[in-house]
Amino acid sequence: MSRKIAGPEIERLVQLLARLPGLGPRSSRKAVLALLKRRNDLLLPLSDALQLAIAKIAECPVCGNLDTVSPCSVCADPRRDPSLIVVVEEVGDLWALERANVVSAQYHVLGGHLSPLDGIGPERLNIPNLIARARSPDVKEILLALNATVEGQSTAHYISDQLQGIDVAVSRLAQGVPIGGELDYLDDGTLAAAFKARRKV
Amino acid sequence: MSRKIAGPEIERLVQLLARLPGLGPRSSRKAVLALLKRRNDLLLPLSDALQLAIAKIAECPVCGNLDTVSPCSVCADPRRDPSLIVVVEEVGDLWALERANVVSAQYHVLGGHLSPLDGIGPERLNIPNLIARARSPDVKEILLALNATVEGQSTAHYISDQLQGIDVAVSRLAQGVPIGGELDYLDDGTLAAAFKARRKV
Repeated sequence: MSRKIAGPEIERLVQLLARLPGLGPRSSRKAVLALLKRRNDLLLPLSDALQLAIAKIAECPVCGNLDTVSPCSVCADPRRDPSLIVVVEEVGDLWALERANVVSAQYHVLGGHLSPLDGIGPERLNIPNLIARARSPDVKEILLALNATVEGQSTAHYISDQLQGIDVAVSRLAQGVPIGGELDYLDDGTLAAAFKARRKV
Repeated sequence: MSRKIAGPEIERLVQLLARLPGLGPRSSRKAVLALLKRRNDLLLPLSDALQLAIAKIAECPVCGNLDTVSPCSVCADPRRDPSLIVVVEEVGDLWALERANVVSAQYHVLGGHLSPLDGIGPERLNIPNLIARARSPDVKEILLALNATVEGQSTAHYISDQLQGIDVAVSRLAQGVPIGGELDYLDDGTLAAAFKARRKV
């Protein structure tokens, strides 16, 4: 920028909002203008909501989910199947599975995936807690619902190694053609996986 | 959403952030996760910056710019040409002109454009203040730097009517082919304006 366009307070807001995923410097500036223009119905409530989040939201000590109660409302829900733990990389993955409403079970959030190049080894993820939970006699199955990426799959591989010798079944999500997917647009890896896992009709 | 995925505090944050331009429900959820994951380097500083903005940033009583000082740092700058007032629709337009560094003059922010269908008449815009400023003997020229849209141009038309009888020159930005623009991709209106305003080389 060639000239200081506004006070340092506004510039700081622009810079902070630009760090959010989905907002660049330009859209961040638009967002700050919207905030300042809509003081009562946007700026004040957002500031309040952030302060409430800071005060109340914390990581669940059991599963790593984010919630205002501890343990989180998922862990505390007695109607969920206690025998199945669904392992995900991030809280967003837990939310996605809950929105899709596919399973009513326990969760375990790793907080990322193994990435030796970035210095993220097993000790940086929520893995020891998972091994401890897997030893509980209630737990019969661990579903590794990790991303179908190289990092996700090597993390799944590492965890299933760690679970050897513990009396639980270890499973992973099926791979294949997504619902509504057109073969012409799918990558070779997905097509190969769908072929290998073909099923009798 | 089929199921409540998180506490109401998190849902509220997602809803508020989704009201910002550039963020939809999906990207807002990603943004909230990023905030909660990066508590110290993102959530806490953003909350502080918003509180500071609420406490310190206000509309300049002279020109309608947003700043932490009153009158704003643009109005208070003695090096700026006092004889030219550049009229813009929004603070974002003022920032754009300042970034482009094209002029060092006074500004006047209308706070929008006339839009009879939305019930926005002249009394809702910062126009009376502009007329009063135009009467000052220091002011020689009013540049109507409004958007080249129907609303912007009819607002410009209304303002130049109001300025009749006051001893100032009224001007507007040139219209034509944008720098780097390819004729093939320009709309008919721009081509017609560029043709009508053609200049001798």
